[in-house]
Amino acid sequence: MIFQDVIIKKRDGYELSPDEIKYFIDNYSAGTLPDYQVASLLMAIFLRGMTGSELAALTHEMLHSGDVMDFSFIDGIKVDKHSTGGVGDKISIPLAPIAASCGVYIPMISGRGLGHTGGTLDKLESIPGFNVNIDTENFKRIVQEQGMCLIGQTKQLAPADRKIYALRDATGTVPSIPLISSSIMSKKLAEGIDALVLDVKCGSGAFMKTVENATELASTLVDIGYRAGKKVTAFITRMDDPLGQAVGNSNEIIESIEILKGRGPSDIRQLTLTLAAEMIFMGNKAESFEDGMKKAEASISDGSALKKFGELITAQHGNAGVIDNYDLMPSYTDTVEVKATKSGYITSINSTEIGMAGIEIGAGRRVVSDKVDHGAGIEVMMKSGDQVNKGDTIAVINHNASSGIENAVARVLNAYVIGDVKIESKPMIIKEIRQG
Amino acid sequence: MIFQDVIIKKRDGYELSPDEIKYFIDNYSAGTLPDYQVASLLMAIFLRGMTGSELAALTHEMLHSGDVMDFSFIDGIKVDKHSTGGVGDKISIPLAPIAASCGVYIPMISGRGLGHTGGTLDKLESIPGFNVNIDTENFKRIVQEQGMCLIGQTKQLAPADRKIYALRDATGTVPSIPLISSSIMSKKLAEGIDALVLDVKCGSGAFMKTVENATELASTLVDIGYRAGKKVTAFITRMDDPLGQAVGNSNEIIESIEILKGRGPSDIRQLTLTLAAEMIFMGNKAESFEDGMKKAEASISDGSALKKFGELITAQHGNAGVIDNYDLMPSYTDTVEVKATKSGYITSINSTEIGMAGIEIGAGRRVVSDKVDHGAGIEVMMKSGDQVNKGDTIAVINHNASSGIENAVARVLNAYVIGDVKIESKPMIIKEIRQG
Repeated sequence: MIFQDVIIKKRDGYELSPDEIKYFIDNYSAGTLPDYQVASLLMAIFLRGMTGSELAALTHEMLHSGDVMDFSFIDGIKVDKHSTGGVGDKISIPLAPIAASCGVYIPMISGRGLGHTGGTLDKLESIPGFNVNIDTENFKRIVQEQGMCLIGQTKQLAPADRKIYALRDATGTVPSIPLISSSIMSKKLAEGIDALVLDVKCGSGAFMKTVENATELASTLVDIGYRAGKKVTAFITRMDDPLGQAVGNSNEIIESIEILKGRGPSDIRQLTLTLAAEMIFMGNKAESFEDGMKKAEASISDGSALKKFGELITAQHGNAGVIDNYDLMPSYTDTVEVKATKSGYITSINSTEIGMAGIEIGAGRRVVSDKVDHGAGIEVMMKSGDQVNKGDTIAVINHNASSGIENAVARVLNAYVIGDVKIESKPMIIKEIRQG
Repeated sequence: MIFQDVIIKKRDGYELSPDEIKYFIDNYSAGTLPDYQVASLLMAIFLRGMTGSELAALTHEMLHSGDVMDFSFIDGIKVDKHSTGGVGDKISIPLAPIAASCGVYIPMISGRGLGHTGGTLDKLESIPGFNVNIDTENFKRIVQEQGMCLIGQTKQLAPADRKIYALRDATGTVPSIPLISSSIMSKKLAEGIDALVLDVKCGSGAFMKTVENATELASTLVDIGYRAGKKVTAFITRMDDPLGQAVGNSNEIIESIEILKGRGPSDIRQLTLTLAAEMIFMGNKAESFEDGMKKAEASISDGSALKKFGELITAQHGNAGVIDNYDLMPSYTDTVEVKATKSGYITSINSTEIGMAGIEIGAGRRVVSDKVDHGAGIEVMMKSGDQVNKGDTIAVINHNASSGIENAVARVLNAYVIGDVKIESKPMIIKEIRQG
């Protein structure tokens, strides 16, 4: 096979065969295909798109470029959740214990924060002692014993995706639905799961700004899952304001624990329960989504989800005492209250700017090598639709920083748009996309 | 400047600024831009196209990536010709002496053969002693003294084009009108010319199969010239059958000398005179194209063009005796006559296959490192529209080869399509595209 011919075929809008896609991934993984040829193909894919068959083959080859975990020794359905990323999105943390306490097995592999979005691993690491670097054997054991385990990506999982992602980043080919979809699904399917719930964010704070775009991405992900023989449901959810009140690490863990205690912000609570209900249904632990919702709510009211989170923390070497004593969590030395500069109604909050304000105080990363200050964080006190008077505290910045505070305050102020008319509140769950 | 932003801008269909294009060429030439980023941009250009302003900037930067020749010391208009390539296309060889004998200055830089198309340099080198590797100072001197000189590309001329071309070849981005146009024009304008006549081939044997495509390429080339302040005229000419009768090297030189002697095939004669007439007109040595045609014809009938060719051969260290004695040219030891396998009319000749038959007997190159047998060649005895009887000789293969003959015969037979109906002869010059 001459790889130029593969590039030319895609360039001219034709469908690549499974053999051609296998040749691409095999040879790029092996280092026998130069970056410049792959870069040219990626741009052709960006501009020409990919069919469902092509995406099935691409995802298959990428996921088989490394180890595929085998959880067949556990007699039960393994389910995971993936979110396309938002500000204040700590959903995985209360979600997994809820679903696991209902009997679902959750082998969850998460990421770190970069840019304006935080990462589940960084948040978990704000729990003293919590270890996300667990080898495969112990990961499997903890999933079997606890029903869940949350770790970081290993180099053995879908290595072709990592190599392609780095090239996409350098060649202007990141925001392509086929390339995003195959990247997400190859990593998730390499976990050895049977089913997946997707939280596809949509709105001003998300990568997908319109329902149309979000629907296209969600449908593509669901279809890839279907073609791979996996159950996949996608929820398209609103991402305008930051999720919940806490944006940071330690404070997001505390907010997650509050959810498990039956408290916490209603947007986080609703989204967590919705995704949990679907995971419980998919995991054959409920007869319907509605039944799953009842079981999820019960796991909070009877304390079993909170208990499960404590057991998980202990299993991953963390101090489960944080559940009852938030003072054990990393904290901050200084507080700045950000006050409204005019009266009116909050019309919108730019989540990206709130995330960037978090970076200014060390709660996030500009580049991969940055260290995270787990105690620093922002509390989003007022949300869109709220009435505000000039001088009211709209947000609180908690920090340990010696610099960057002025920038953080400016970004938070910049993020809030205050108008004269009260906006209608919008639903959290926009739509759902199911197989068949 | 972040180069990803440049890629993304083009990817999304926006116009790049002159500064962005300068950054691209400067940094790629300097080796500070990796191949993979340029590959991605080239595919984006392939699929999104380029505006006239972008092409003007790209051509400008590419031509200034190396030396630009300065012929201002010659008081007269410097004119060159470029052809997009055909089989049996020896036009440059009779053309240059005709125009030079009429007083036009022609600093002509030509190429070598690769694949099915031959190269002017290889053809010239079949003249014993003829040297195409002449340094810049002597090139300038010979142009001044003889009115013309024919040499090969130097590494100092438009080096960015050479680097980009190699990457295009590997990344499936060759047949792009913007990339082809900027490549041609950067090399030609680096010759320091004032005017250029373009022979844009169109038809089954050309890269541009339709008049529409050929017109788009021709218009783009003419517009780049206009924006660079140069006079450019393009002729779209037919390239179905091979041009003339001779396909090879030595035999194409002999056919060229025949043209200068007022003989030779009519298609070659007409195309040569047309391009020469325009060059003479552009060079201010005729009052109109028609007047240029009269002067071109006169240069043949009065022997001045043939005399000029002899002087050129001598100036470039060749044996000008070949003009009167073709036996001094490299020759062949064996001849195979290819005979029609059925009776009828010749409907078409696949020029590419005829060119490939030439490669089989060593008259052309498969790869750059191949040696050329200057004596080997094919005589195309019958052309489209000719009536033929089974057993008639349609082509003659003259060779010195010990192998490859059967393949060559098979390719020639395969190239000829013989049908039942006589086809109409088509005009050689399809249209012309002038500035303003």
